[in-house]
Amino acid sequence: MSADEILYWEDFTVGDTVAMGSHTFAEQEMIDFARKFDPQPFHIDPVAAKDSYFGGLIASGWHTCAVAMRMLCDNYINRSASPGSPGIENVRWLKPVHAGDTISYRRVVLEARPSNSRRDMGLVKSRTEAVNQSGEMVMTFEGWGMFGRRPG
Amino acid sequence: MSADEILYWEDFTVGDTVAMGSHTFAEQEMIDFARKFDPQPFHIDPVAAKDSYFGGLIASGWHTCAVAMRMLCDNYINRSASPGSPGIENVRWLKPVHAGDTISYRRVVLEARPSNSRRDMGLVKSRTEAVNQSGEMVMTFEGWGMFGRRPG
Repeated sequence: MSADEILYWEDFTVGDTVAMGSHTFAEQEMIDFARKFDPQPFHIDPVAAKDSYFGGLIASGWHTCAVAMRMLCDNYINRSASPGSPGIENVRWLKPVHAGDTISYRRVVLEARPSNSRRDMGLVKSRTEAVNQSGEMVMTFEGWGMFGRRPG
Repeated sequence: MSADEILYWEDFTVGDTVAMGSHTFAEQEMIDFARKFDPQPFHIDPVAAKDSYFGGLIASGWHTCAVAMRMLCDNYINRSASPGSPGIENVRWLKPVHAGDTISYRRVVLEARPSNSRRDMGLVKSRTEAVNQSGEMVMTFEGWGMFGRRPG
């Protein structure tokens, strides 16, 4: 399926795992995000980070989530008539993301059911997974999304 | 307690609700965040947003969370020896945050217990709540944090 085709609820199958792309976390970008939103020493100060438990600068967990959201938009949400999300569950920051790490994002379909209230919509529960260049899972979260059903 | 005093696990009492500060979401700031991380039309395009279900530009849910994290850093995390968080639960985007809305953040202590593995640490489960200028709850999330215990 090409990346500019519209996605419908019928396009999601439980168990499907789809790669969404990857992002390399540059030190300056990590610092810029964390200065605004998560100014802990090991996120904003390379010297303090070196002496910390983590041994070097690591990305804010909210930054790895925000990049995941960008991947979800580019791969799914902006290819559908999604009316937004009520929330997410089980956000897990499993391993640190260090400066220069390349994180690959993928999405696993966990559940799918038609909407009870809207016959033209269906619900999909998925897990977003982030994996580093060594194959270690660094972050996951889960949530329901709403997608239009294929007409006809 | 002054805002630059060190916080220990003993300073948290179940049921405590503490105001953390407020933030007014300016339109351009909302667009800047969403262009990077959540480029859905109702987050980045005031004209498209006006025609959307929301009737105007709204902030990315990740943006309201990221600002909450900043408040948590300023009020708690950077006043303690917190070694980071394993994750969060029950992120709920309950109401839209519109351009110009002033969101007040507060933190409620839900549970507290000493660490089993580290005698010098204690755990605190809290809910972060975001409320708009009309008193409507717009966002909540929950999570465990680790804090050092008061010496002696």
